[in-house]
Amino acid sequence: MFSGAQISLYPMTDDFVAVITKALGALDPYRERLRIETDDLSTLLVGTPDVVFAAMRDLFVAAAASGKHCVLHATISRGCPGEPDDPMCQTPELTGPMAPLAERKAKALATVASAPLSGQATSAQLSLYTLGIDQHMDEIYGCIDFLKSSGVFSRSKNFCTKLSGDAAAVFATVGEALVRFGPPAGHVTIDLTVSANSPSAH
Amino acid sequence: MFSGAQISLYPMTDDFVAVITKALGALDPYRERLRIETDDLSTLLVGTPDVVFAAMRDLFVAAAASGKHCVLHATISRGCPGEPDDPMCQTPELTGPMAPLAERKAKALATVASAPLSGQATSAQLSLYTLGIDQHMDEIYGCIDFLKSSGVFSRSKNFCTKLSGDAAAVFATVGEALVRFGPPAGHVTIDLTVSANSPSAH
Repeated sequence: MFSGAQISLYPMTDDFVAVITKALGALDPYRERLRIETDDLSTLLVGTPDVVFAAMRDLFVAAAASGKHCVLHATISRGCPGEPDDPMCQTPELTGPMAPLAERKAKALATVASAPLSGQATSAQLSLYTLGIDQHMDEIYGCIDFLKSSGVFSRSKNFCTKLSGDAAAVFATVGEALVRFGPPAGHVTIDLTVSANSPSAH
Repeated sequence: MFSGAQISLYPMTDDFVAVITKALGALDPYRERLRIETDDLSTLLVGTPDVVFAAMRDLFVAAAASGKHCVLHATISRGCPGEPDDPMCQTPELTGPMAPLAERKAKALATVASAPLSGQATSAQLSLYTLGIDQHMDEIYGCIDFLKSSGVFSRSKNFCTKLSGDAAAVFATVGEALVRFGPPAGHVTIDLTVSANSPSAH
């Protein structure tokens, strides 16, 4: 298994470099459990989904605490056949046979319900893609059902689902979407956008 | 067929609202051929891929002309089984049988070679997903081969491919990736990030 994300942080301010630099300290508790590489477009986080999502959450909450309009985008992937297995990504969640959809939804909802809150309000949208399988829409619709009952569902949009709520609940929900839908060892990706402090939020 | 994109524009400046508002005029020549809907996270463009990509290109070039660091993100989709057919999206490119890979690559390269330049330098990265088919990596690798010979290839990254070059060539290349790979009537999506004026560009 290989899993991780290419993440980018966009603070809409003249001081964007300072906001990003200050927020990067939020990654420190995770650095030993992640491989991190940065270029001018994004930062790669390689690790298990729980660590990757916790790191993204804390980075985003730290940036949003600036009060500036901030957006995080992440291209998230697990199980891509073109990536090598990496010991840093091993997790029992992503092995073994695929449990029935109802059981997976229940586990996902329990995890989201137990996430402590961050105090940071957010809007978000995600697209989940389950690759290399027929009937991929069954898994996508199953995921959308879970999102609708997650407590942070906002509305369905063309090409994506919109969420809104506390940053911790939103990141926990998207993390569960990644690991619970599609075969455990399969190739699943998410295109995620999270926003805070937007002047046009409604 | 239903095709389009959810696009977001991120100018990294205190004046981000003014940069976005001014750039929106670039969409005017396309408004009759697009359905457009906006919320606080993104703007939906529904139309044929050629029109959607031309509109994204002109919007991004207009925003980047501000000289500010600007990023455009797009969640692009065609043929999603969950979306209704839309007459606004009909195009002969996305019907009929799938031509041999070599023929599709040649058509894509010819289109990119004929794109007039915009004068705006960019970096970009994209992930292409072909859904609902077995052997999806064959199409993805075919697309990566095309990207490598497109003239704007920069490097392979985990989860995505990085491009750099003139904005017009970059958007033309990504547009060809969308329509030439995966079955013509199939479900294909792209997660696209385009950046200009980054202080950390290299």
